[in-house]
Amino acid sequence: MLQKKIAKHLKQLGQKKFRKEFEEFVVEGIKGVGEALKSDAEVVLLVVEGNRRDEDEIAKLIVLAQQDNIPVEFCGRKDVDEIKTTDTFPGVLAVVGQEENDLEDIVDAPIICLHEVKDPGNLGTIIRTADWFGIKNILLSEECVDVYNPKVFRSTMGSLFHTTIFRSGNISKTLERLKEEFDYEVNALDMDGNDVSKLKSKNNAVYLFGSESHGVSDTLEELIDNRYTISGKGDAESLNLAISAGIVLYKLSS
Amino acid sequence: MLQKKIAKHLKQLGQKKFRKEFEEFVVEGIKGVGEALKSDAEVVLLVVEGNRRDEDEIAKLIVLAQQDNIPVEFCGRKDVDEIKTTDTFPGVLAVVGQEENDLEDIVDAPIICLHEVKDPGNLGTIIRTADWFGIKNILLSEECVDVYNPKVFRSTMGSLFHTTIFRSGNISKTLERLKEEFDYEVNALDMDGNDVSKLKSKNNAVYLFGSESHGVSDTLEELIDNRYTISGKGDAESLNLAISAGIVLYKLSS
Repeated sequence: MLQKKIAKHLKQLGQKKFRKEFEEFVVEGIKGVGEALKSDAEVVLLVVEGNRRDEDEIAKLIVLAQQDNIPVEFCGRKDVDEIKTTDTFPGVLAVVGQEENDLEDIVDAPIICLHEVKDPGNLGTIIRTADWFGIKNILLSEECVDVYNPKVFRSTMGSLFHTTIFRSGNISKTLERLKEEFDYEVNALDMDGNDVSKLKSKNNAVYLFGSESHGVSDTLEELIDNRYTISGKGDAESLNLAISAGIVLYKLSS
Repeated sequence: MLQKKIAKHLKQLGQKKFRKEFEEFVVEGIKGVGEALKSDAEVVLLVVEGNRRDEDEIAKLIVLAQQDNIPVEFCGRKDVDEIKTTDTFPGVLAVVGQEENDLEDIVDAPIICLHEVKDPGNLGTIIRTADWFGIKNILLSEECVDVYNPKVFRSTMGSLFHTTIFRSGNISKTLERLKEEFDYEVNALDMDGNDVSKLKSKNNAVYLFGSESHGVSDTLEELIDNRYTISGKGDAESLNLAISAGIVLYKLSS
């Protein structure tokens, strides 16, 4: 049985406000926990389903945690229903400290900026794709879905630990600073710009994507230097946001 | 109140075996129902939540349906909980006949072939993206998630009605026929091929994508003429399938 205090804490981390308060989040599953342990992130606690402790891959994670003096707690079947964030609990989870970056941490290379992205799958997939193409700096507006939401984490497939994410409290001000202090230009993807084939990768450039439903917000209009569009030929009304970002990331890396 | 017979039928269409038996599926929401009514698809029935019948967009759909002599049924709050496929019922759904295509219907242009794609969001997003880039012919293996699954339909954003989908009962035989009878070549996307920058669009080419977890199956090995890879530079283990397909579709259209 898991201590009540720990079970309660894990349940609280299901909510954004508590994740923010404790500056922690939950990573579920063998692959994710393995990535967390390998990364620079601070793993606070490992929770393992007791009757699965001897499974090969889980046993390896326990050894890794113990080597780093990370406490390991074992839980029973009943606990699992309380704490799991997926339908089928994968036998292991970790409580991990959130990484807090400053703007200065992402000004050494191109930046992918997401404004008001609401879908956890889209945000996670964009982080995973950016990581694939070696574009590691990501800037999120305050209205984006919480990057430490378990659905976002699952979609990143561990790439959250390979990227540097700065969560802005005021995206307009942050973009202004990037332009003025760090000489960045802002390139927005929208429906009415130059063909994306003209897009070139620049070290001091922000590539800005708006929300799934409204695109790039008018409030950022004055900060945008260039606009690019992925032209369609068919009858679909729009492209999925993560697909648009995937195409831009491919262009930037090729 | 909805007649019991209709409520039962709608519930049954939540299951793949009944969708197959009746050759029908359910489209929920104003946009989807609108696309269905505009398309060549056979709309069998419209179901409207009674107290929303006067809302502008819903009233327009009712008029469109009546012009085509499509029966319109009204349902109450209680019915909604029984029949909805989304958390919040959007006020209107349509029962639509499935379109059955032959292989001959997709041999006039490039073909996107998906083998064992299991994730509804991926399948729907790929159909939407193919439609965006004007690539309309889609071939699905028998193991793919049902294209008439409501989650797939939602992810297509209506593009199911703009594309021609052939569902093969035996993908190896279908690819063989495409090669022998229709002179197609088969290009597979996998981890170990030529760089995708070398990919060219050809009218008589199949672009083959494997499953999310296993990639292109060995069982199709002998049918593959060329292999292409989207090279990564970062630390992610793989690209999301829909993102890979999106990049290929972009390459084919540019």
